[in-house]
Amino acid sequence: MATVSIVAASGYTGQETLDRVLAHPRLDLVAVGSDSLAGEPASALDPRLNRNGGRRVPVFITNEAALACGADVTFACLPHEEAAALEPPARGVLVDLSGAHRFADPGVYEQWYGFSHPRPAELRGWSYGLPELSPPHGTLIANPGCYATAALLALGPLKDAVEPASVVVDAKSGMTGAGRSLKPSTHAGLVLENVSPYKVGEHQHAPEIAQLLGFDVSFVPHLLPVRRGLLATCYMRSTGADLRTLLDEFYAGSEVVTVLPEGTTPELGRVQHTDAAEIGVFRDRCTDRTIIVCAIDNLGKGAAGQAVQNVNRLFGWAETEGLRLSGVLV
Amino acid sequence: MATVSIVAASGYTGQETLDRVLAHPRLDLVAVGSDSLAGEPASALDPRLNRNGGRRVPVFITNEAALACGADVTFACLPHEEAAALEPPARGVLVDLSGAHRFADPGVYEQWYGFSHPRPAELRGWSYGLPELSPPHGTLIANPGCYATAALLALGPLKDAVEPASVVVDAKSGMTGAGRSLKPSTHAGLVLENVSPYKVGEHQHAPEIAQLLGFDVSFVPHLLPVRRGLLATCYMRSTGADLRTLLDEFYAGSEVVTVLPEGTTPELGRVQHTDAAEIGVFRDRCTDRTIIVCAIDNLGKGAAGQAVQNVNRLFGWAETEGLRLSGVLV
Amino acid sequence: MATVSIVAASGYTGQETLDRVLAHPRLDLVAVGSDSLAGEPASALDPRLNRNGGRRVPVFITNEAALACGADVTFACLPHEEAAALEPPARGVLVDLSGAHRFADPGVYEQWYGFSHPRPAELRGWSYGLPELSPPHGTLIANPGCYATAALLALGPLKDAVEPASVVVDAKSGMTGAGRSLKPSTHAGLVLENVSPYKVGEHQHAPEIAQLLGFDVSFVPHLLPVRRGLLATCYMRSTGADLRTLLDEFYAGSEVVTVLPEGTTPELGRVQHTDAAEIGVFRDRCTDRTIIVCAIDNLGKGAAGQAVQNVNRLFGWAETEGLRLSGVLV
Amino acid sequence: MATVSIVAASGYTGQETLDRVLAHPRLDLVAVGSDSLAGEPASALDPRLNRNGGRRVPVFITNEAALACGADVTFACLPHEEAAALEPPARGVLVDLSGAHRFADPGVYEQWYGFSHPRPAELRGWSYGLPELSPPHGTLIANPGCYATAALLALGPLKDAVEPASVVVDAKSGMTGAGRSLKPSTHAGLVLENVSPYKVGEHQHAPEIAQLLGFDVSFVPHLLPVRRGLLATCYMRSTGADLRTLLDEFYAGSEVVTVLPEGTTPELGRVQHTDAAEIGVFRDRCTDRTIIVCAIDNLGKGAAGQAVQNVNRLFGWAETEGLRLSGVLV
Repeated sequence: MATVSIVAASGYTGQETLDRVLAHPRLDLVAVGSDSLAGEPASALDPRLNRNGGRRVPVFITNEAALACGADVTFACLPHEEAAALEPPARGVLVDLSGAHRFADPGVYEQWYGFSHPRPAELRGWSYGLPELSPPHGTLIANPGCYATAALLALGPLKDAVEPASVVVDAKSGMTGAGRSLKPSTHAGLVLENVSPYKVGEHQHAPEIAQLLGFDVSFVPHLLPVRRGLLATCYMRSTGADLRTLLDEFYAGSEVVTVLPEGTTPELGRVQHTDAAEIGVFRDRCTDRTIIVCAIDNLGKGAAGQAVQNVNRLFGWAETEGLRLSGVLV
Repeated sequence: MATVSIVAASGYTGQETLDRVLAHPRLDLVAVGSDSLAGEPASALDPRLNRNGGRRVPVFITNEAALACGADVTFACLPHEEAAALEPPARGVLVDLSGAHRFADPGVYEQWYGFSHPRPAELRGWSYGLPELSPPHGTLIANPGCYATAALLALGPLKDAVEPASVVVDAKSGMTGAGRSLKPSTHAGLVLENVSPYKVGEHQHAPEIAQLLGFDVSFVPHLLPVRRGLLATCYMRSTGADLRTLLDEFYAGSEVVTVLPEGTTPELGRVQHTDAAEIGVFRDRCTDRTIIVCAIDNLGKGAAGQAVQNVNRLFGWAETEGLRLSGVLV
Repeated sequence: MATVSIVAASGYTGQETLDRVLAHPRLDLVAVGSDSLAGEPASALDPRLNRNGGRRVPVFITNEAALACGADVTFACLPHEEAAALEPPARGVLVDLSGAHRFADPGVYEQWYGFSHPRPAELRGWSYGLPELSPPHGTLIANPGCYATAALLALGPLKDAVEPASVVVDAKSGMTGAGRSLKPSTHAGLVLENVSPYKVGEHQHAPEIAQLLGFDVSFVPHLLPVRRGLLATCYMRSTGADLRTLLDEFYAGSEVVTVLPEGTTPELGRVQHTDAAEIGVFRDRCTDRTIIVCAIDNLGKGAAGQAVQNVNRLFGWAETEGLRLSGVLV
Repeated sequence: MATVSIVAASGYTGQETLDRVLAHPRLDLVAVGSDSLAGEPASALDPRLNRNGGRRVPVFITNEAALACGADVTFACLPHEEAAALEPPARGVLVDLSGAHRFADPGVYEQWYGFSHPRPAELRGWSYGLPELSPPHGTLIANPGCYATAALLALGPLKDAVEPASVVVDAKSGMTGAGRSLKPSTHAGLVLENVSPYKVGEHQHAPEIAQLLGFDVSFVPHLLPVRRGLLATCYMRSTGADLRTLLDEFYAGSEVVTVLPEGTTPELGRVQHTDAAEIGVFRDRCTDRTIIVCAIDNLGKGAAGQAVQNVNRLFGWAETEGLRLSGVLV
């Protein structure tokens, strides 16, 4: 068992992390932080915090207190810039679900995130934890972005088998990816009956994808009128190898990532509300490109589920402990 | 004035064509065909057919009768294979909104449409009518596909200015693009909270795009949980020219196609329920690609609106007569 | 012709009013007000304001200037409390689309709107303009609420034929009814895959319905995951008369309100984007109640369309001039 | 432990029942029936049937075989008329999730279901199992309808405290309530941007509600553009007692049904994907009615979850064993 604290639990990512922690047989929630809800009953966020008298988290505490509570694992679900300023706790593992520690190069923050990183020297102390491709190590874990996760699950195992200049990633995400705060782009009047490309050619997950692959790709995200789920449609040219075979072999032992048989298309419905990923591989009849489609839940494998999977790996537990691995097409 | 007959008016495309004809000051509807509704009051499809006693279309007639009624303009909204077998009427203009006459090469039908064309020798007598790029002429007009329209509005003016091998078209459409007939893919249970790539790398609009451009591109369509509207996100490398400048110049005089100013993104809401198109041009910060996004209404500029625009051109009327050119973001 | 000014044009109601004014052959837009957009090009709101060089509205002016510009007709689309404080312009007709002048009794504002009316003595100078039931007169017109419109179109003609104590109105509205401002209830994360009852038993349209009927009813509104359209399902007991016959007779001459034949159910799709209303009448097999369902577009007959219809009446023009009366099930 | 067979597993209700059985620690799936899928791998429906080699259900068998396989518990998810003709298996418990055995009076089937019941004499041998109000007993269990469940959870505990003639139930359901078969009403083109009242005043759940209450109510269902979730808005007059107090007391010990504190409104988001129910109680400010809103998941507490809850009761296990009781507002 490991004790857990969640910092900034009231956003979508925080709440979904809370859900995974409560369902995990080896994680023991001891603190839930939220500056806006400090002092209020924790059950306002999740009714399960009300039911079992045994829980030690009857009320929200401040984020500062949650960070300092000495838990074995701290999940930080803060906005990028606030997370960048975090002083890691004296003990335990810190998993940052923001983008604040995903890059070794502090210059990325000025160019892509719009702020100068306040603790640039420490960035190299963080481990980018994408279990299938870049297993976490140490005590400071940067959890990947949702778009980057989907793109990298498709492209990572193929990075030496594709022409770098040929790769395009066109991604579509449910609107929970845009967060719970109020802004015009998440007003239902602009989301319903719509699909919105945004930050076209300049989204901060592009350098995250490039960092792991070792080369740049074109990347455009779109917001969908769905609550959750994310699809990355990836276009590429092979340098010779059969890309399906490479993916089949790479994910052969995985319970999290499924490479679908030929002719089967990933379905958002099967991965929504789960921490699993589905990959479909297609040959383009017109050109010599291969098209690979990866589907995940942006809040599951794209955030909270992956954070817990990283912890499972770090602690040496079964990789899928506490994860949700099957959805239903209903 | 020109008299109009609509063949197979009861599908989405037929109904939308009917709407444009009723709103057009120079088109006079004289017949509405539907084999399934023959004999029933035409007002069942559109209440306007009830109101003005002067209308000559109180009841549906058969498609055969609608085709033979001697109208100046006949719009055929049949399924591909049925449309391919059509004997053109003895007089007047025939606009085929299906894919049955879009290709000069009959081989495309076997490879991409799944049927052998029954009248291959006549294909060369048809004109592919995409007014901005391939103005209609003669009396047999093949109206373009919705995806092809969006892709070609973005790519057509640039075909000599981009690297052919660099072009990728990732498109997303409202589900009316899948038609009114009942099939699993249009069951709301699979459409809501979902986005579905389909016919990945093998959709029949790929060769249609290639025919006009003169080279092949990669194309993947996706079905969205919206009723109408279509977005094509196009990735390409320029061979040198500034692509925005080329598009600005090409569409300078157009009332139908708007090239948005830098930094402005196409919005489905502004083109839904219209026959207009919006194009946004973006520079990719990571690679040397340009990204061009084109938004149309799949049933407007992507079908019925374009059919009427073709007729306006053929008859020498103002190009936008009877078209709907502005939507609202509401 | 009449000149028109719109105050607070940038919300949903203002924008939709602008749309109707631009489409109206006898209305000549001369001013568009918005405090937040003052000085910006008016075409930002509607591209039609850009196209015709002849338009006199190249930029937004302040709401105060729009109110004082001396137009023949001023449409005010302000929030309730701001509208209540308005000094009517010296000349012309003022149509208030808010709830600020719908009640003769100022006490309603304290009880139901949460503010004390700043100009209570003037309330009796306003005319409640619901053309079919309470035709507008004079120069100060209070435009009805969207829910009240749907409920009253169904119940108004029957007010002497039903048992007052039996009436229940359960209404469902598209989320544009909640306005364009950012609040948790319009965040897409709470709108998608949801239906939200709100202000249960305490919504301010309840006294509005009661004022015209002369008796209280139970009323609960719900927010739907749709952009526009509103359905009111009304339950009542007749005191003897056949309610369908009464409605048929009452709306016999109307081009705006259609009483559907027996067995036909109102469809949101047929009234969305229109200023029309549909009414269906049903007998309850279990009890002696009659169930009447009324469908409108909340922004059309429920707001902007009705405002223009009121103006048509006041100026003695054809009632449906400039209105949109037919939608399509697409 | 009890062995389980599912008859007609491939519909929405069947698939959801399968999900609950797989998650239940005391249920051991031994057969999955589907006439259309017989012979195909069971993992096509749910990938979990693939993973654990230990499972005894590698392929679908026919419904007849699934019924005859001697399981301790058989869940039948057939259409009403097919279920009515079922010969109960020789041993074990049979839970019918259709409406075929919910009525003691066979006349209801002719009047409301459109068929004459083929085994009318056996109807009295079935127990209507709504655990909170009508606990199951014996071996033949009729599982309640989704609308009836929501209405009865709100009204059942109050049936002696309300005026029968005052009760109106206005319900709204996600479209999975309409089933997986293809019909115009479930085509996404009619579901998106729409809300559809249907079978107005003549839905077969009306007599089901009446049978348990002992009096008739008015009932109108509406189809929503959401996948799952159901809300029943119930209007009633008390004969004197405080209805909130009665509900609070009735559900005080329940882990499945939560009566929300004053001012809190049921949220579909909190019950979707769960087997729980939420009830909100409101006073109507205009009339002397009380308004009670009940939210459930139509496939959870409205179908599969309740079926498993009935089995838990019958076998004397903890009532909530294997149930999903908390959702998240994400």
